[in-house]
Amino acid sequence: MSDSELSDSEDGNLFKILLATDIHIGQGEKDAEIADDAINTFEEILHIAVEKEVDFVLLGGDLFHENKPSRRCVVKTMELLRRFCIGDKEVNFKMVSDPSLNFSQSKFPVANFDDESLNISLPIFSIHGNHDDPTGVDNLCALDELSTAGLINLFGKQTSLEEVNMSPVLLKKKNCLLALYGLGAMRDERLHRLFTQQKVHFMRPKENMEEWMNVFVIHQNRVSHGPTNYIPEKFLPNFLDLVFWGHEHECQISPMFNSEQDFYVIQPGSSVVTQLAEGETVDKHVALMQVKPGRNFNITPIPLKSTRPFIMRDLVLSETRIEPFHPKVNEKVEKYCTKVVNEMIEESKNKITGHRKQPQKPLIRLRVDFSGGYDPFSFPRFGQRFVHEVANPRDIVKSFKKAKEAKRREKNSEVKIDLEYKPEKLETATVEGVIKEHFQKSEKNLLLLTEKMMNIALNAFVVKQEKDALMVTINHVLETTEKKLIADDANLANIRNELVRMSKKKKKKKETDSEESDANDENDLEKLLQEKSQKGYAMEDSDIEVSPEMTSKRGVSARRGRSKSQRSPDDDLFSEVVEPPKRGRRGSRGGRGTRGRGKRGGVQQRLDSMLGTSTSSATPPKRKIVDIGDSSDEDDAFAGVQVLTRKKGK
Amino acid sequence: MSDSELSDSEDGNLFKILLATDIHIGQGEKDAEIADDAINTFEEILHIAVEKEVDFVLLGGDLFHENKPSRRCVVKTMELLRRFCIGDKEVNFKMVSDPSLNFSQSKFPVANFDDESLNISLPIFSIHGNHDDPTGVDNLCALDELSTAGLINLFGKQTSLEEVNMSPVLLKKKNCLLALYGLGAMRDERLHRLFTQQKVHFMRPKENMEEWMNVFVIHQNRVSHGPTNYIPEKFLPNFLDLVFWGHEHECQISPMFNSEQDFYVIQPGSSVVTQLAEGETVDKHVALMQVKPGRNFNITPIPLKSTRPFIMRDLVLSETRIEPFHPKVNEKVEKYCTKVVNEMIEESKNKITGHRKQPQKPLIRLRVDFSGGYDPFSFPRFGQRFVHEVANPRDIVKSFKKAKEAKRREKNSEVKIDLEYKPEKLETATVEGVIKEHFQKSEKNLLLLTEKMMNIALNAFVVKQEKDALMVTINHVLETTEKKLIADDANLANIRNELVRMSKKKKKKKETDSEESDANDENDLEKLLQEKSQKGYAMEDSDIEVSPEMTSKRGVSARRGRSKSQRSPDDDLFSEVVEPPKRGRRGSRGGRGTRGRGKRGGVQQRLDSMLGTSTSSATPPKRKIVDIGDSSDEDDAFAGVQVLTRKKGK
Repeated sequence: MSDSELSDSEDGNLFKILLATDIHIGQGEKDAEIADDAINTFEEILHIAVEKEVDFVLLGGDLFHENKPSRRCVVKTMELLRRFCIGDKEVNFKMVSDPSLNFSQSKFPVANFDDESLNISLPIFSIHGNHDDPTGVDNLCALDELSTAGLINLFGKQTSLEEVNMSPVLLKKKNCLLALYGLGAMRDERLHRLFTQQKVHFMRPKENMEEWMNVFVIHQNRVSHGPTNYIPEKFLPNFLDLVFWGHEHECQISPMFNSEQDFYVIQPGSSVVTQLAEGETVDKHVALMQVKPGRNFNITPIPLKSTRPFIMRDLVLSETRIEPFHPKVNEKVEKYCTKVVNEMIEESKNKITGHRKQPQKPLIRLRVDFSGGYDPFSFPRFGQRFVHEVANPRDIVKSFKKAKEAKRREKNSEVKIDLEYKPEKLETATVEGVIKEHFQKSEKNLLLLTEKMMNIALNAFVVKQEKDALMVTINHVLETTEKKLIADDANLANIRNELVRMSKKKKKKKETDSEESDANDENDLEKLLQEKSQKGYAMEDSDIEVSPEMTSKRGVSARRGRSKSQRSPDDDLFSEVVEPPKRGRRGSRGGRGTRGRGKRGGVQQRLDSMLGTSTSSATPPKRKIVDIGDSSDEDDAFAGVQVLTRKKGK
Repeated sequence: MSDSELSDSEDGNLFKILLATDIHIGQGEKDAEIADDAINTFEEILHIAVEKEVDFVLLGGDLFHENKPSRRCVVKTMELLRRFCIGDKEVNFKMVSDPSLNFSQSKFPVANFDDESLNISLPIFSIHGNHDDPTGVDNLCALDELSTAGLINLFGKQTSLEEVNMSPVLLKKKNCLLALYGLGAMRDERLHRLFTQQKVHFMRPKENMEEWMNVFVIHQNRVSHGPTNYIPEKFLPNFLDLVFWGHEHECQISPMFNSEQDFYVIQPGSSVVTQLAEGETVDKHVALMQVKPGRNFNITPIPLKSTRPFIMRDLVLSETRIEPFHPKVNEKVEKYCTKVVNEMIEESKNKITGHRKQPQKPLIRLRVDFSGGYDPFSFPRFGQRFVHEVANPRDIVKSFKKAKEAKRREKNSEVKIDLEYKPEKLETATVEGVIKEHFQKSEKNLLLLTEKMMNIALNAFVVKQEKDALMVTINHVLETTEKKLIADDANLANIRNELVRMSKKKKKKKETDSEESDANDENDLEKLLQEKSQKGYAMEDSDIEVSPEMTSKRGVSARRGRSKSQRSPDDDLFSEVVEPPKRGRRGSRGGRGTRGRGKRGGVQQRLDSMLGTSTSSATPPKRKIVDIGDSSDEDDAFAGVQVLTRKKGK
């Protein structure tokens, strides 16, 4: 790349975008010590955006930690957005796609910087995450409030559970073209199934198709937690240039090149420590993406300075010199742990950055393996001595079994990212745990409700705070049971036995059937809950004749209709792309480069055979870690920063 | 008034303000039929504001029906505000008071129309009501979100529970001066006590003091529901020109002159029917207030056209020809009721206005007195036949006893407004009812918790959705009990008997003591709950030593300190006014007018004797209904509309 290209950029051809994700405002809000960690880091991120003079900020979901964030969170977030994003500074790029497609769910289908009544200096684009996902009447999420207030641009919301259609946000800065695909979080299993059913559609602009740099923002499991509860990278179309992966909290700020798919993946990770787990020990970053005409981009990692230091260590007592049968063993163990924690506190001081808002008390997690005859002590009592030095005194120490963990690691050795780190568990562990326990231990098993249905209902009720979820679920179960009984021509005189029979049948079915068909009942329920909350308030009183079945059917067909009609205006402007996850190994990056992109030009590709339905045995994609230094020769212009560049089709 | 005065007004001296209150967005949201009534009327109100080209809208609280309105409500409200209030139209008046005093609780202590980054075409000023009152960490209410987003100007929030200080919003349009006092809703008993303790302070601008038209927006009980749970008009200072009373839902759109206090009171009433009670049958209105220099103002009532028709009738069966012992009496009664309801549906058609968004199905309430040997029928079943004609089929009929009601009316004859209409009951009836029932019926009475404490706690928990309210309450009770036990040097070996003794003592005290001292425990609790939610998240784990008592004390003193320091900057600019509720009868309106206002000039008045503490026998002020026609001679300029004018000090 020559100097002239840089001056091109300086002439206004250079897109500067700040990538940040999983900011989790409201995380730990009940603990005064860490309550403001996330919001302070969000402030730092906005500061960076202004300082670096980016064109816009792109967020990968989970701006809020809770589906219904506290009023304090919402107000504090609005305060920051009003402070940093509203102002007279000019926005120097244009949105050229049809905003009524990109923001079809908003009453203001226009980018905030294109609304003449608003005065936006720093645009933000965001998808929703799984924490701040849409629920309730009208399918709204917390980000919708910000978006309606004109403070952010929420995109990537889907109306249908049956099909995903993505029209990119098309942004133009002089000759630099950027297509932004966004898909708000949805249940991994569902999206996985939609991909295998070829129901995920990426629209592409027909005009100058190959000149658009294609970025896809996704908020799903990237790491496999089971056959279908993650999204394999090979599912994503290879016309993409960069996949911006939210949801996974481990910071992998250097983009990884997926040579199979011929795209890069960047996973900035959360900006705040949400779990005291290994994945979160990696220093937190956001990324400055610079895009130049010809689909050239580079990524500059920017370390966050306001994040709280977090130090984690493992201690296996049997590997120390402490004798398990020594008369004063307990005293010695505690003393030793105290020493280690003090070392960790010292170590944490290396992470003090001098940022005005960085909290000084570190998060400390010492995992202790007590096996070999050692007695665990009271961890909260132990923590008391560190109240003034550690942010989490109550749970500094956690017991673990090294052997067990090593085994688990071995089992999952092909998965790069630490499996212990599962953001999903954070919210649902308790509810699910309780239900699981109930179903496992209880002598009197429920006849009609399955564990999973109970989970779906309770999650809607507790996590999403949908007040009617339990009632809707019970009604649903009773109705379907009633229908089954009638269909089976059951002996109604002996209703209990019939129910037991059905329940056993269900259980048996569960053991033999494939996961797909097993999930039918639960899917029905999930759909119903979503419809219920979208369609709203059907009369609850049975005195008035409203058939829930009718309502439900109407709901589904109405939505289907809408999603289709939404797509139709695209057809003239966009080509639809569904790409194969595999077309055999496609050679090295260089080779791909020479093959050129133009080949796939205006031809509308639909390769129906590409997405097999048997995905349960899918192995995670092998990722090639791109050596940052390796690519710097391609782009001297961006020297001086940690740089990664990509050229395609040139 | 001469024509020249009007042209003065046309030169830009005329303030036009739309008064509306108790819009209750979200009321009935779970019932699809009426879910959008309130928001549609809010839209109509904003339409009127734009059409009448008012300078601003003044809201009297309860914009939202719920303390935590649904996301749908918030988003829909924001949509309307963004549509109607943001734009290029110029704002032609100035705010001349110190916004950091008026909006001291906001991170943006500036009126939205004075924020250069915002583009406000229609300013809204609002206080909060009892439905959308501040709670939780940082003492925020739903309106704070709107205010932070720059969509409204929230004022009248108080930081202290011990003292009320009101600095007016001072608005200036050429020579027309308007001082806006606002006081967000608080517990009536508390405000009543603060008034009697002379702890409610109205600041007045020293400069041109007598030229400011003084409007006070209040959201409290105006009607007595007991000795201290309302605010007598005589408590309010008589320098006020107009009291804009929110909270009471009955529309009394013609200002009433309080000759004792020498001010007018306007009670626009709710803009939506929230209860099927007599007070709500009055047609709904908002009011256009026009203010001219010299404290001249007039009020033009504007009927709302989007409100749902509501017809209410009483039917005493014993007064009909139906014989109670006729073999087919039940059939006859139902038939008769059907006939009456059909008549009412017909009658409701007179209330169809042709407004695009007015719902056509009326609310119908037929109160039937079954006494005299008639059997009530199933009201929901009865309603089924009206499902397609009536908005509230399930509860068209309600049984009542005419004799009982007549008696109650007689008892409260001095109170003008229908006592059956108590907006407060709407939200809390069930919770309080359950508790009352428990305390009355239960054999095993609780020893430590009083009914009222339970009420306060459960209200915070249920209505305001404060998750920790119950725990805080129980801890509070246990702590105070512990202290009392220690103080009493109780025999701890026989703890139960000690508790029974204390409980009895408490009960006895309740029977003998005055209401003031009885309320101490409950007040402590209320304070604690508010502090808790304001100060936030003290560590919950008792392992870490944080004395709740300490926290509590710190909380109080901190707040006190703040409230004082807040007042201090006022001292140079404002005079403080605390006015007597009574100085003997002060003659007719005319006489008052000639007496002139100037007399009270710069002298800071503090009449300490004026507010006696024995207010329990206070009779409601006699209100003189001002004949609208009567005042038109004073202001020909406003002819053609229903007009009420006032001149003072001229």
